[in-house]
Amino acid sequence: MDLNADAGESYGRWTLGDDARLYPHLSSVNLALGAHAGDPGTLRRAVDLARQHGLGIGAHPGYPDLQGFGRRELALTPEEIHDLTLAQLGTLSAFLHLSGTPMQHVKAHGALYFRIHGDAHAGQAFCHAVQRFVPHAALMVLAGPAGETLAATAHASGLRVWREAFPERGYLASGLLAPRSLPGSSVHDPHEAADRAVQMARGTLTALDGTRIALHADTLCIHGDNPNAVQIAAAVRAALAAADVPVAPPA
Amino acid sequence: MDLNADAGESYGRWTLGDDARLYPHLSSVNLALGAHAGDPGTLRRAVDLARQHGLGIGAHPGYPDLQGFGRRELALTPEEIHDLTLAQLGTLSAFLHLSGTPMQHVKAHGALYFRIHGDAHAGQAFCHAVQRFVPHAALMVLAGPAGETLAATAHASGLRVWREAFPERGYLASGLLAPRSLPGSSVHDPHEAADRAVQMARGTLTALDGTRIALHADTLCIHGDNPNAVQIAAAVRAALAAADVPVAPPA
Amino acid sequence: MDLNADAGESYGRWTLGDDARLYPHLSSVNLALGAHAGDPGTLRRAVDLARQHGLGIGAHPGYPDLQGFGRRELALTPEEIHDLTLAQLGTLSAFLHLSGTPMQHVKAHGALYFRIHGDAHAGQAFCHAVQRFVPHAALMVLAGPAGETLAATAHASGLRVWREAFPERGYLASGLLAPRSLPGSSVHDPHEAADRAVQMARGTLTALDGTRIALHADTLCIHGDNPNAVQIAAAVRAALAAADVPVAPPA
Amino acid sequence: MDLNADAGESYGRWTLGDDARLYPHLSSVNLALGAHAGDPGTLRRAVDLARQHGLGIGAHPGYPDLQGFGRRELALTPEEIHDLTLAQLGTLSAFLHLSGTPMQHVKAHGALYFRIHGDAHAGQAFCHAVQRFVPHAALMVLAGPAGETLAATAHASGLRVWREAFPERGYLASGLLAPRSLPGSSVHDPHEAADRAVQMARGTLTALDGTRIALHADTLCIHGDNPNAVQIAAAVRAALAAADVPVAPPA
Repeated sequence: MDLNADAGESYGRWTLGDDARLYPHLSSVNLALGAHAGDPGTLRRAVDLARQHGLGIGAHPGYPDLQGFGRRELALTPEEIHDLTLAQLGTLSAFLHLSGTPMQHVKAHGALYFRIHGDAHAGQAFCHAVQRFVPHAALMVLAGPAGETLAATAHASGLRVWREAFPERGYLASGLLAPRSLPGSSVHDPHEAADRAVQMARGTLTALDGTRIALHADTLCIHGDNPNAVQIAAAVRAALAAADVPVAPPA
Repeated sequence: MDLNADAGESYGRWTLGDDARLYPHLSSVNLALGAHAGDPGTLRRAVDLARQHGLGIGAHPGYPDLQGFGRRELALTPEEIHDLTLAQLGTLSAFLHLSGTPMQHVKAHGALYFRIHGDAHAGQAFCHAVQRFVPHAALMVLAGPAGETLAATAHASGLRVWREAFPERGYLASGLLAPRSLPGSSVHDPHEAADRAVQMARGTLTALDGTRIALHADTLCIHGDNPNAVQIAAAVRAALAAADVPVAPPA
Repeated sequence: MDLNADAGESYGRWTLGDDARLYPHLSSVNLALGAHAGDPGTLRRAVDLARQHGLGIGAHPGYPDLQGFGRRELALTPEEIHDLTLAQLGTLSAFLHLSGTPMQHVKAHGALYFRIHGDAHAGQAFCHAVQRFVPHAALMVLAGPAGETLAATAHASGLRVWREAFPERGYLASGLLAPRSLPGSSVHDPHEAADRAVQMARGTLTALDGTRIALHADTLCIHGDNPNAVQIAAAVRAALAAADVPVAPPA
Repeated sequence: MDLNADAGESYGRWTLGDDARLYPHLSSVNLALGAHAGDPGTLRRAVDLARQHGLGIGAHPGYPDLQGFGRRELALTPEEIHDLTLAQLGTLSAFLHLSGTPMQHVKAHGALYFRIHGDAHAGQAFCHAVQRFVPHAALMVLAGPAGETLAATAHASGLRVWREAFPERGYLASGLLAPRSLPGSSVHDPHEAADRAVQMARGTLTALDGTRIALHADTLCIHGDNPNAVQIAAAVRAALAAADVPVAPPA
C-alpha cells in the first residue's frame, strides 16, 4: 500500500504542514506547483527532501487561486485545464530533471480534483495533458464509484491509474465519500484513522451506517495540512507495519 | 543574423503585441512564461504560432511582477533567481515537448536581464539554472562591454552565448546602450532602425556622438510591444535582405 | 437615460479599452478595482479622467481572478463576497476622497454580477457590504425579470436600484438576456445598437423572436472593451440626442 | 509607551502569527492590507479582534509582493508608491467604517518601510498619500537618526510622527539599527527584550558596543511573526508594568 500526502504547500513567508516530520512516514508525495500553493524555492526544497527520504514524487496541479488554496471551484474551460496542467507538470519536471528523478504520478488538487472526477470534458483535458507530457506517470483517482469515469478516461488515454482512499474520511455505504456535513465524515483520532487504513489495505471499509463495504485502494492519502498530520501518518504507518502491509508505491 | 522579439506577452483578457503579424519577420522568439507576462493558454498558442513560422523558440524568464511587467528591479537572492528561472524553463519545456521542439535559447526579461548582466552572483545563478536544465540552449547576452561578465560566466558554465544588439536603441561610443534620458537613445523610425540593423550585421555602429564603433552581434532584438513593431520588423528584415544578410539563428 | 461603461480596466503594461475616447459619450463609469482588472495607478487616472468629463463614478468590484478577468465563476462563500466587495469599495473611496467626489453607484463585474443575480445569499452579502459602506450609492441591477430578486434584496437593504439594459445584447421575449449561443444575441452594428438604445429609452424592446416587450431601464451599458466600443457609444449617444432623450444619471 | 505589532498577516489558508494570543499584550496593531499579506476576510477578523481588545488600529501598507512578503525591495516610482499606499489605506478604511473606528496610525511594511526612510522622493509620496486621505493619522517613523528625514517630511506634510524602536533589535552607538550580520543584532530572549523595552521607555539604550545612548521612542514594535512573539510581548508588557510605564498609544 502506498501512503501519499500533499506537500510543498508553503508559500513565501508562510509555512503549511511539517514536511520534514511527515515525510519519514510516507512513500509518495504530491508537490504543489505554484498555482494554489508552493513557489519555486519551496518546490526545490520539497523535491530534495522527498529524494532524501526515498519517496515517489508526483505533481499536484491545482487551480490558479492562491487566496482560496485551490479549494474553490473556478469555472475554467477544459482547454484552460489542459494548459494549466501542462504548465505545472513542466515546472515540476525541471526540478526533477536536476537529479534525474522520474515523475512517479500526478494528482489534481482540491477543487480541480473534484472537477475532473465529475466533469468528463475536464477529466479528458486533464488526462490528455498528463498523457502528452508524462505518459509513464500514474494518475491518482478516487477509489470507489466516484472514480470510475475518470479512471476509464485515464485508461483510454493510456495512463495507469492508482486508486486513492482517505483513512481520515468517512464513506457512505455506496462507496462515496461522506459529505462533510455528516457526523463521522471526518476522522480526527490517529488510532481510528490507522484502523481504517488497515481495513483499506485489506480491501474493505466500514461505512458510516455500519455496513461493511469493499473498497479497492492502491494509495492512502494523509492530509498533510492538519495540525496532527504527523501523528496520524505515524499511526497509520505503524498500524500497516503491524498488519504486515508493506508501505510502498504500487509496482 | 538572427532577428528575435519578445512574444507571448499577452495575459488573460489583455493582448500585447501582434504576434501573428510580427512572427513572419523574425527568426527567433523569446516567450513569456507567466511571471511577468503570459499565461498557459497564451504560451501554448505562441509556441504553435512560432512553429508554424519555423522560428527558433527560446525561454524568456522574468521577475514575478505582473503589475510591473517584470521591468522593476526586485531584490531577489541569487538562489531565488536560480529557482524562478528553473521553474519558468520547465513551463516552456512542457509545451515544447508536445511537438518535440528543442529550446533554442534563453533570454532574461526586463529588470532580470539587466540584473544578471550587472550582478555577478545573479548571473551565475541564472546560468547555473540554464546549464542544469537546457545545457544545449544558447544564452542571449548584451553585445558590447556590458555583456562581457555575463558572457564569461555563461562560457564557464559550458553555455553558448549569442550576443544581442538593439537596432531601436542608441549606443554610446563605449559600446554601452545609451541611457534613455539622452536624446537619440530611442529609434522610432523604421528606416533608421533598418539602417542600424544593417550596420550591426556588418559589425559596426554609429554611436550617439557620431563615432563609428565595432559591435559584434549574433542576434538583433525588435521590441514586440511597440505600436509600430510590425513595421520596424518588416523594415529591418527587408533591409537585411537587400544587404544580402541571411536572417536565421546562428548555426 | 444614463449611459455607463466599465472602465479603468487596464493593468500595468496592458491597456484595455480607450477610456479617453469613450468617456465623452458616457454619463457614468464603473471602475475596476484591482481584483479582476485595474491597478492603483490606472484607478487614479481613471477617476481623474471621469471627473474631467463630469461622469458619475461607480465601483465595479469583481472576483479576484486577473487571469480570467473576473469572468469565470469562482465559488466564494457569501461572507467572502461581502469582504471582497467591501475591500474594493474602500479602494475606490480613497481615490474619490482626494477630490471629494461621491461614489455614485456600484455595479458588480462579470461572473460576480451574474452570481449575485442568481444566488440570493450572495446577493444579500453584496448588498450588505454596499449598504454598510456607501448607503447613498445606487446599485445597478439587470433590467427585466432576472433582476427582480436582487432588486428586492437591495431595496430591503435600503439601497436604491438602477435597472440596467444592454443595447448590444439580444433579449428573449421573457425579458431575459438571450444566451450567447443564439443567433442575434450579440449586436455588433453601431446603428442597430443605437436603435435598440432608443427603444430602451422608451421602455420597450424588440425581442429575438420579433415580439415587442416592455423593459424598464435606468441605465444602458456600453461594452468598453470591444474594438468598436467608441463608435457604438458615439452612435448610441447621437441617437439618444436625436430622439430628445437626455443622457444623464437618474436624478 | 505604545506597544505595536504587525498583524492580520495571514493569507487564505496560511496562518502567520497568533493574533488572538498576541493582542492582549499590545496597545496598537498595524494591519496588512492584501499587498504583501492579508486578504479581505483576514482583515475583517483582525479589525474585529483589535476592537475587542481596545487596540489602536493602523494601516500597514506594503509592496505588492506576496511571494516575498513585501520584504524585497521593488523599484516602484514615487507615484506608484503614492497610489499603492492610497489604495491600501482605502481598503482598511472600509473595514474601520463598519464600526466608526478611526485609523489611528500608518506604518509602512518591510522593504517599503526602509525605502521611505532612505529615499526622500519615496517618503514624500508616501506622506502625501497619508496626508490626503487620513491627515489625523500618526505616521510611525524609525526612532534615531535614520528616521529624521522621513519625520521632517511627515511634519512638513502636516502629519504627526510616532517614533518607533525595536526591543528585539540591537543598535549601534550612532542610534542606527545594527545590521543583521552583526552578533547581538537580534534579541531572542524575552527577558532581554523586556529589559531593553524598559530602557527605551526611559529614553536610553545600551548599544552593541556597550555605550549608553539616548533614544526617544513613542512606540515599541514587537515582531508578531516570531515563534516566541507572544512570550516576548508578554515579557515586555509585564516589565513595563513593573517599571510603572503605562502602555497606551501617545495622547
